[in-house]
Order: sequence, then structure tokens, then C-alpha cells
Amino acid sequence: MNNAYAHSLATNSQMTQISVNRCFDGEQHYYRHESPATKTSMTFSIYLPDEALAGQRCPAILYLSGLTCNADNVTHKAHFQQKCSELGMIFIAPDTSPRSSDDDEVPDDERYFVGQGASYYVDATKAPWSENFNMQSYIVDELYDLLRSEFAISSIGIMGHSMGGHGALLLGFKFPSKFVSVSALSPVCAASESDWGQAAYTEYFGDDKELWTQADAAHTIARVGQQYAGVLVDQGAADNFLAEGQLQTEKLQQACDKAEQPLTLRYQAGHDHSYYFIQTVINDHIWHHWRMAQLA
Amino acid sequence: MNNAYAHSLATNSQMTQISVNRCFDGEQHYYRHESPATKTSMTFSIYLPDEALAGQRCPAILYLSGLTCNADNVTHKAHFQQKCSELGMIFIAPDTSPRSSDDDEVPDDERYFVGQGASYYVDATKAPWSENFNMQSYIVDELYDLLRSEFAISSIGIMGHSMGGHGALLLGFKFPSKFVSVSALSPVCAASESDWGQAAYTEYFGDDKELWTQADAAHTIARVGQQYAGVLVDQGAADNFLAEGQLQTEKLQQACDKAEQPLTLRYQAGHDHSYYFIQTVINDHIWHHWRMAQLA
Repeated sequence: MNNAYAHSLATNSQMTQISVNRCFDGEQHYYRHESPATKTSMTFSIYLPDEALAGQRCPAILYLSGLTCNADNVTHKAHFQQKCSELGMIFIAPDTSPRSSDDDEVPDDERYFVGQGASYYVDATKAPWSENFNMQSYIVDELYDLLRSEFAISSIGIMGHSMGGHGALLLGFKFPSKFVSVSALSPVCAASESDWGQAAYTEYFGDDKELWTQADAAHTIARVGQQYAGVLVDQGAADNFLAEGQLQTEKLQQACDKAEQPLTLRYQAGHDHSYYFIQTVINDHIWHHWRMAQLA
Repeated sequence: MNNAYAHSLATNSQMTQISVNRCFDGEQHYYRHESPATKTSMTFSIYLPDEALAGQRCPAILYLSGLTCNADNVTHKAHFQQKCSELGMIFIAPDTSPRSSDDDEVPDDERYFVGQGASYYVDATKAPWSENFNMQSYIVDELYDLLRSEFAISSIGIMGHSMGGHGALLLGFKFPSKFVSVSALSPVCAASESDWGQAAYTEYFGDDKELWTQADAAHTIARVGQQYAGVLVDQGAADNFLAEGQLQTEKLQQACDKAEQPLTLRYQAGHDHSYYFIQTVINDHIWHHWRMAQLA
């Protein structure tokens, strides 16, 4: 994002407020804004504790959702609001991809793990995807700057679930100057080596395997080395996608070992891949990001 | 429910398990079963803490949802699971009405507050509704007995939201021998005097105003007098349905005054009628039912 655009946002907001609901000691808001990166309108939710509503700068969590999701799933089902209210944390949930609307026609694919609603936080290089599918730039430049200019944010941590967990690990280690903390729930750990990711990266990057590697979380962690005091990852031990080999959690452990990146990796007995699992462990993740923000 | 039917359930379950997900230290289950009262298949969700899964009898909350809802809304959005896991409580969410399916044709109405998905916990007397719309018998006889025969339940409290809050107050005071505790969130307090309830009761009961009165929570409380050590009610002060006169909270206060029924009625500043409000106060309600169960 160029400075002129950032300045225009700060002085003349291009966000449209969609809804406000009081929740615990704070408010759940939704906004829509026009994105130059995706060339579409984009929606995000943001939970603002009363401190932030009063203008006091609070630490924030940027939460990246998984395949098939939009901002609603985590906002309705993960129950982050109570702990964020208690600790005074902001929680932001962006959409997972550009989407077609009356105003915008966006490419799509029949497979749920490619195209609209699929959650790869990368900039596609291959047509037709490269026109709109620039979610890395959207998240780390555009939305990041918009959030910092529009809300009382002191620092930003990044977390995500499933393919959004891959995005959180990838962007957290590719852009460590932007984030003070990283965590993930049931993450895909090496998208370029999973069936889902290989299908998507073939579309988005073609045969350029260097681009695949740059868009792979485990490769990136191993390459850049330690960036955070600790990384927290929870994984359901009864997760069917773990059994099917989509998640490859062992590759995250290997990458962190190589990077000498401290990793707290917890396998939770009996838990699956669902939001019932997410709500079970999310308080620990909010606490992790809050602690790291105090140290930042 | 006759004893022969209850016996057949106990010895040869007619429930079909739809799903199981681990959530905190317990499991969220869904079941379907054939209902003689509604002459349809009915679905409910039940959260079972590990103690109950191990066969230890636990107190239970029967939660009645509001207009337009089914068992999913509260199960996905209210976040009762954490507190129920902590306290060792069972939480049951039935559907709000009979519904048409491939096997069953059920009457309906274009208005969202009449017919399928509308949540009146009464037995209709007028055709065509009287064939299926027998939700009072479904809840207090059929489902009640099914739950007690199939799960490790020590006692049952009843709560609900909006028109389900009306149902909880109505059934709790009509059948005090069945329930050990009552609470409500944003309840309709006098259905026979609200626009929604008058439309529905005209369909379900016709002109017999004695039936309307028997199906009215405030009237019932005033008539039967004190039944519980205390009743807990939370109401959002910024609730649009309160402003529109659908809830008539003052009639609940007047009825409890007349009945000498202790009532804790809390108006929550800034809060609306949504699940964001429900999740904000539900822990206090679970705690209320847990305390009352200890006294029972």
C-alpha cells in the first residue's frame, strides 16, 4: 500500500460498518472495504473491548480461517469474545479469499480447496488467479495498515486454523517485523506437500517450484530460523485430516527443530478438526498472544 | 407417554446418533428420534461432560430456543460447553417445532412466528395444527422421559431465550414437579398479549381465551404462586424487541410480585437480543441451575 492511500484511509475512512453487537465488555463489529489488492470488496469482523472503544491502544490478534470459511465461522463459533474482553484484546477475522459479487467477477473452481472460499494467504502469479488472489498482500500490507490506521492497536499477533493456520505460520515467519506472536490450531504445516496445497499452487503458481517453496510454512520456518520467543500449536489427536496426511504436523516440528524455534506442540486426545475443538483451546491461544504482546 | 413406550425406549433405544464431537472435557452429541407427540422425527443436541459419559448422574439444563431457531443456533453460538464442562452439567437443546420431511408433511405458515420453526411450547387444539404442534407434551412428557431413560441425569432445570424463554417460564411453572430450576434470557413474558403470540394462538387455539391464558407465562406464574427459591432473568436494555413491546418484561415482574416468587431480573446495558448477548450471560445461568440442582 502506498503512503497516499494509507493517508486517505486515515483521514477519510473507506470502511463501511455493517453491524455492531455488544458482547461481554466490548463490541463485535463487521466492516466492508474496497481492496486494491484483490480488486473486490472485502469483509472482516473485529471484536473491540471497551478499552479499545475508548481509544486505549490494545494488542490485537489477526485470525486466518481455513478452507470453505468466511469471517462468520470463527466469529460465531470460536467464542474468543469472552477472553478478549477479560484481557483487553482486539480480535480480527478477515475473509479467506476474494469473492464474486454484483460488482466483481472473480475466478473460481469446483474444488473447495481452490478458488473462492479457499484460504491460501499467497499472491498468485498465474492467470486468471493473479488478478484477484493476492491474499498475502491483502493481509500483510493492506488490511494490516488499514487496521493500524482505523483502530487503537498497540501490536498484532497472527494465528489461524487449518489452512489458515498454515497462513499464520507462513506470514508470521515471512514478515516477523509485522507480528509480535504466532500460533496455530490444527494447521496444514507444509501446503506445498499436501494434496490440497498442491492442487491450489498448480493453479496459482504453475510449475515454478521455487514459488511453491516460498509459499510453504515449514520450508519458510526452516529457512528463516527463530523469530519468536515461542510458538503455540494445538492439534486434535482424533483429527481425520491429520490421519489423511493433509496436516503433516511432524514437518512443523522438524522445521522448528532446524530453525531452533521454540515450539509448544500439544496433541489433544479425542479432539477433531471442528470448531468444537477450536473453542476448547482458543483461550490458551489468546493468552499466548497477550503474554507475547506484553513482552513486545 | 405411556409406560410401555417408556419401557421400550429404555430397553431398545429409538434414538439415532447423528454426530459426536469432543468439546472441552466432554462431548457434544446430536440425536434424532420418532416422536408420537408431533408425529414426526425430532432432533436434539446434548452436551455430556465426561462424568456423565462415565455414567455418573449429572444435573441437566433443558434449553428452549426462540422463533426461527433449531437445535443448532444455541449449540453453535451460545458457548455453554465450557461452563458445563467445568461444573459437570448436561445441556440439552431440542428443536423448536415439528418440521416437514420426506416422510412427514406438517402444516406451516408464511409468518416466521407461526408454524414450523416458531417456538411455542403448547399443545394446539385447532386443526390443522393440533395434529403435529404438541410441543408441550413433546417437551415435558416425551423428551423428558426419553432423556431420563437414556442419559445419566440427576435433575432437570429449564431455561430458554425469547419465545423459548416464554416456554421455559410457562412449563417451569405449569410443571414444577418436573424441574428443579427456571431461568430465561430476553423472554417473551406474556405470549397471549404479544403480537407474535396472538397470531400463533389464534391459529393454534382459535377463540378459546381460556386456552390462551393457560398458555401464557405471566398468567401462569401469577396463578400458581411461588415454585422456586429464585428465578434468574437477563434482558438486554438495548433489545429492539423490548422497545417494540413484544417482550413486556414488566408483566413478568408484576406476576412474580403477585406470586411472591423471588425474581432476579437484570437489565444489561447496551445489549441486544442476539446470541452475542446470550453468550455474555449464559455462564451465570448455568451457574444458577447448578446451584439450584445442589439444593434439590
